[in-house]
Amino acid sequence: MWDEFDLIATHFAPLARDSDAALGLRDDAALLTPPTDGDLALTLDTITSGVHYLPDDPPDRIAQKLVRVNLSDLAAMGARPLGYLLSTAFARELDGAWVARFAEGLGRDQETYGIELLGGDTTAMPGPSCLTLIAVGAVPRASALRRSGARVGDWVYVSGTIGDAALGLRACRGELSGDGADLAVLCDRYRLPQPRVALGRALREQGLATAAVDVSDGLVADLGHLATASGVGIVMDAEHVPLSSASRRVLDTGMATLAALFTGGDDYELAFTASPEHDSEVRAAAEAAGVTIARIGAVTDGQDVEMRDRAGQRLSVDGMGWRHH
Amino acid sequence: MWDEFDLIATHFAPLARDSDAALGLRDDAALLTPPTDGDLALTLDTITSGVHYLPDDPPDRIAQKLVRVNLSDLAAMGARPLGYLLSTAFARELDGAWVARFAEGLGRDQETYGIELLGGDTTAMPGPSCLTLIAVGAVPRASALRRSGARVGDWVYVSGTIGDAALGLRACRGELSGDGADLAVLCDRYRLPQPRVALGRALREQGLATAAVDVSDGLVADLGHLATASGVGIVMDAEHVPLSSASRRVLDTGMATLAALFTGGDDYELAFTASPEHDSEVRAAAEAAGVTIARIGAVTDGQDVEMRDRAGQRLSVDGMGWRHH
Repeated sequence: MWDEFDLIATHFAPLARDSDAALGLRDDAALLTPPTDGDLALTLDTITSGVHYLPDDPPDRIAQKLVRVNLSDLAAMGARPLGYLLSTAFARELDGAWVARFAEGLGRDQETYGIELLGGDTTAMPGPSCLTLIAVGAVPRASALRRSGARVGDWVYVSGTIGDAALGLRACRGELSGDGADLAVLCDRYRLPQPRVALGRALREQGLATAAVDVSDGLVADLGHLATASGVGIVMDAEHVPLSSASRRVLDTGMATLAALFTGGDDYELAFTASPEHDSEVRAAAEAAGVTIARIGAVTDGQDVEMRDRAGQRLSVDGMGWRHH
Repeated sequence: MWDEFDLIATHFAPLARDSDAALGLRDDAALLTPPTDGDLALTLDTITSGVHYLPDDPPDRIAQKLVRVNLSDLAAMGARPLGYLLSTAFARELDGAWVARFAEGLGRDQETYGIELLGGDTTAMPGPSCLTLIAVGAVPRASALRRSGARVGDWVYVSGTIGDAALGLRACRGELSGDGADLAVLCDRYRLPQPRVALGRALREQGLATAAVDVSDGLVADLGHLATASGVGIVMDAEHVPLSSASRRVLDTGMATLAALFTGGDDYELAFTASPEHDSEVRAAAEAAGVTIARIGAVTDGQDVEMRDRAGQRLSVDGMGWRHH
């Protein structure tokens, strides 16, 4: 059985080494000096073993996913990530090697995203591990992207590809057959999200997006959140939703439906709205951020999200597949 | 089985109603505008059922304890509490009524401490509940109390009384016999800490404390943390450590030792150091904050914490009781 003070000293204190705010993890709280005239964006996510990740997932990937799902929330606001606090209630049966690999994953993403560990808490959990990360980001005062700014006539965009993670979960579990390289790509998309931090910041800095949300609950659900928050409707063209070639090949086998991809969640892409007159700037910003984007629909004066097929016919998701009205 | 969106809408969204920063809990992150020229103090604590609280503890008390252990960390830095984020990984078997009472406790302490819910995450836990709270406080730039400022010759003070919570845990568990009123008082001291927010702020605003720590791990251990951070030693007079009359009566029965009280933890009092020349101002600040304080020792050029009895003889804690050197 490990000791929490040992774990902190060995694995977590080094992650806070370069942070003035963390006070060496040795004080009662972290002390963060916020950027002048800025707002702080604060978000948290909790993942539990057996629910949000698989118990035998690689520990470094679990750590990186925990970091990245939170950075995806910051990305949706166009915030610059500053640092994070971490609560690790580790299942008692985990050993020091597991924790070491977990900390390795954190260290890797600290480098990737320029963030630092600000503070935390480590305890032994008499049950499955329960891991909570709080990400702190900065945006200039009153400039954060919100879900609520979409205007009728705006175009709707999404970054990357949708549905890979939903298939990836099944691929990781060994529930899909097919090309091994495809399955590995999909499993990796489930385990290692790519938060669109640079894209979110560019859209905010250039004043391009009128509203944004990160796609975590599923594309349809998250567009619905954006529509509700903005008091608008969204018409989405199913055929324009970007899919990876790996996903397309799995779809072709009949092992999955488009509906499962559009509602599966865990994509951690950005969905956002922008005025059509800014289309070329939006595309340039995405290119500069190294992210593909696709226009998937438009904002209407309706309610909720309506999907259309190639012929313009309305589709709905009933949880099992596509159904024509 | 409850639904997380229902729980949030019913129980948690109302707690964020008055908060501009929380964005109605409907955006990707909270957006906090920090006070001008201030630092933010960020702290978190995780409590799990069966480890940090008893499964049949009243849910409102569990919520309040979770709030208060974090506010105690802010108090130790002299910070003004602003708000909190909350992750509730609730055991699946908890029902809506349990969560309603938990939220009631949060609401009560929001009023008591003038804080608001900024954001959160609610999930179902396949195991014991795992609850994490992150408290956010504000201090003027570079003015927070730290553990590291104690100077040789300073006096050492502690607020309130020490050891009640350690006995209170045993009282709550039915492991102590004695006067019913005493046992109820002690159990309440375990369940409902009184974070010394006003005292911490006064000590910081008036520039009185040179170092401070909250007593959560046990008085001896936390004074040790302060001594280590400050690079000093502390001599502590055992007879001057303030005890409640309820604790004294339990001690008289022989069911507990002084050592257990001094090392038990969960006190959530403030221990701090100040120059002897400020003694009367320190006492006036405590009186204004409505908190008793006691001088329990002095800062030396030694190391660690040394305890002395009434005759000035050195004592040590071996975990079982007192032992003379």
